[in-house]
Amino acid sequence: MSDLQKESLLLHEQYKGKLSVEVKMPLNTMKDLSLAYSPGVAEPCGQIHAHPEKVYDYTIKGNLIAIVSDGTSVLGLGDIGPEASMPVMEGKAALFKAFAGVDAVPICLDTKDPEEIIKTVKLLQPTFGGINLEDIAAPNCFYIEETLKKEMNIPVFHDDQHGTAIVTAAGLLNALKLVDKTLGEIKVVINGAGAAGIAIIKLLLNMGVKDIIMCDTKGAIYEGRQEGMNPVKEGVSQVTNRSMQQGKLGDVIKGADVFIGVSSAGALSKEMVASMNSGSIIFAMANPVPEIMPEEAKAAGAAVIGTGRSDLPNQVNNVLAFPGIFRGALDVAASDINEEMKVAAVNAIAGLIDSSELSPDYVIPGPLDSRVVPAVRDAVARAAHATGVARKPLNQLVDVQS
Amino acid sequence: MSDLQKESLLLHEQYKGKLSVEVKMPLNTMKDLSLAYSPGVAEPCGQIHAHPEKVYDYTIKGNLIAIVSDGTSVLGLGDIGPEASMPVMEGKAALFKAFAGVDAVPICLDTKDPEEIIKTVKLLQPTFGGINLEDIAAPNCFYIEETLKKEMNIPVFHDDQHGTAIVTAAGLLNALKLVDKTLGEIKVVINGAGAAGIAIIKLLLNMGVKDIIMCDTKGAIYEGRQEGMNPVKEGVSQVTNRSMQQGKLGDVIKGADVFIGVSSAGALSKEMVASMNSGSIIFAMANPVPEIMPEEAKAAGAAVIGTGRSDLPNQVNNVLAFPGIFRGALDVAASDINEEMKVAAVNAIAGLIDSSELSPDYVIPGPLDSRVVPAVRDAVARAAHATGVARKPLNQLVDVQS
Repeated sequence: MSDLQKESLLLHEQYKGKLSVEVKMPLNTMKDLSLAYSPGVAEPCGQIHAHPEKVYDYTIKGNLIAIVSDGTSVLGLGDIGPEASMPVMEGKAALFKAFAGVDAVPICLDTKDPEEIIKTVKLLQPTFGGINLEDIAAPNCFYIEETLKKEMNIPVFHDDQHGTAIVTAAGLLNALKLVDKTLGEIKVVINGAGAAGIAIIKLLLNMGVKDIIMCDTKGAIYEGRQEGMNPVKEGVSQVTNRSMQQGKLGDVIKGADVFIGVSSAGALSKEMVASMNSGSIIFAMANPVPEIMPEEAKAAGAAVIGTGRSDLPNQVNNVLAFPGIFRGALDVAASDINEEMKVAAVNAIAGLIDSSELSPDYVIPGPLDSRVVPAVRDAVARAAHATGVARKPLNQLVDVQS
Repeated sequence: MSDLQKESLLLHEQYKGKLSVEVKMPLNTMKDLSLAYSPGVAEPCGQIHAHPEKVYDYTIKGNLIAIVSDGTSVLGLGDIGPEASMPVMEGKAALFKAFAGVDAVPICLDTKDPEEIIKTVKLLQPTFGGINLEDIAAPNCFYIEETLKKEMNIPVFHDDQHGTAIVTAAGLLNALKLVDKTLGEIKVVINGAGAAGIAIIKLLLNMGVKDIIMCDTKGAIYEGRQEGMNPVKEGVSQVTNRSMQQGKLGDVIKGADVFIGVSSAGALSKEMVASMNSGSIIFAMANPVPEIMPEEAKAAGAAVIGTGRSDLPNQVNNVLAFPGIFRGALDVAASDINEEMKVAAVNAIAGLIDSSELSPDYVIPGPLDSRVVPAVRDAVARAAHATGVARKPLNQLVDVQS
């Protein structure tokens, strides 16, 4: 056990978890009790019964989200089950509060069955203003999120997919400025067909990237490939790799402008980087050891490199996205977090670094940059309005430290 | 709208609900983040994966309960649905925290189907250390609680049943001292066959009462009655009223020692009280207007009277029971709240009033009496140990204000 691990374990034991539920309203006298509970509480109950949307005015629903997991794909630990995933979900809830004032509770479910997960989350709808799906393995995560988005009237967001995609896309936008290329002209190779990889494809296509090839352990995914396919990869094969390139990562990366790794340590060699187009951009996000270390990638000719690590430049950290996204969605009581809201978040994050500051080691703001959450919140809330999914006006944005 | 109702509505709107989720562990620096979240959090996750019971050491599970409702029987409001029940469930959670330091969150479910409720609550087991069922209508509440108690390894407690039963029984114990009668010799008539009435029967039988008659709107329930029966009342008919008395409340109350009303305003007349045995004891708990007002009951000869109202003596208030009961159960990581633990709570509450203080207007401690929670906690934790449902030793009882 490392010192950090020991310290973490000790802290978790000392605090017995990371969250507490606290009372906001005074509860000291019999009068207080009669206002917060019986008989006074009957009045907000009656009002909500008569006007269901008032649940956003009189209860915590409008600021409360569930961090839902089945524990099947937790950090680098894999399928460790719902109990063992609790420390991560509590941590996520703590980040939601600390970064964006969002009240969040872990909901770790004793099932891996996607239908049971869907059913359960739908039944929780009266209580929560939003659902953050977390650490649910692919491909179930896609089906679960898609179904819940269709069938619920509160935002559903699988952070492992979209958080990573949004921050990567923000970094990519800024990196392209440095190498003077545009989204429409680049060739992108994504290595890893898990949750994040699939979401990155969707987001980049939405933003105007035309040429994407996804690789899994069998190599490039192309229409008609027989080996190792599933319905999600079939979908990928129909919207990417229109030139039907086949072969391993080392084959298809030749001449590419961008490599995005959501795969495993060492998957990208120096030779592969050297075979890319000039001004190549690398996001090597395998954790804790990236697909290639930045110094190696640089030596092989890469122009900009980002990783998932906090001790290296350009960290792709989801904490840049999910707090502000939910803050913005909750502030307008949005019924969805749609594609336009995600793209708005990308632009807000990228836009925080102006051209004078932009450099190969600074295309993504740091995770503790306090400008990020308010900027993302504003952009997301405005996009929710523009796309008709907001229930409340824009003048109620909650103050967050900036 | 009364002034109290107006003030309550205003407070609910001002605070947007009564709860917040707060972060216990420091989260200010990158080091803090690496301890509370990735990568440090992997260590408690791994420990729990290897030793599942450690979820009680490293997460909030051991202090976290769900207040589960389907909104079918909320206060005097009836079936107002899950959204409209949120203010009550938040209020209950607030009481849990304020009185006993228990972290509690509302879980209001979008279904009235008992099978769906059971399924959902079971799937929540990894997250919570206990389940408080609330405001679920009879008879579903009996089946739901019974099934969950059998199939879950954390305590499940339907407060509308047992909270009321425990506080009533505590008041009864003390009232009997005043009239110099014992549990084994009294005749008890319970009016109202809802959740609380059924639970009161079970508890009093457990504590040694032999002669109980339950009445519903059709009159006395007896074995073989045809009209207005259901499986729960069938069960009642087999363990009560062994003399098979028939007739209305006014008939069977003649000669009774104790009347317990969980029914409706005005159900008990002065004439009925006058027909009871001398030294009669009345718990008239219909809310907000009792089955009979104390002054009327006294005038008709009653020796001790309790109601559900905070502005009258001897208030039967569940807040005397549920905070300390869950505090005790959670402190020893109990797998159940069993009958012995409930009886222990009864004795603990009754025992707080010693013979020198005992009077007809003081058989139940006041709801703000700070001795109650620690006394109930200790008694419940000890009973959990004695009956083998405790996972943790007795030396870890959480400090509560006393």
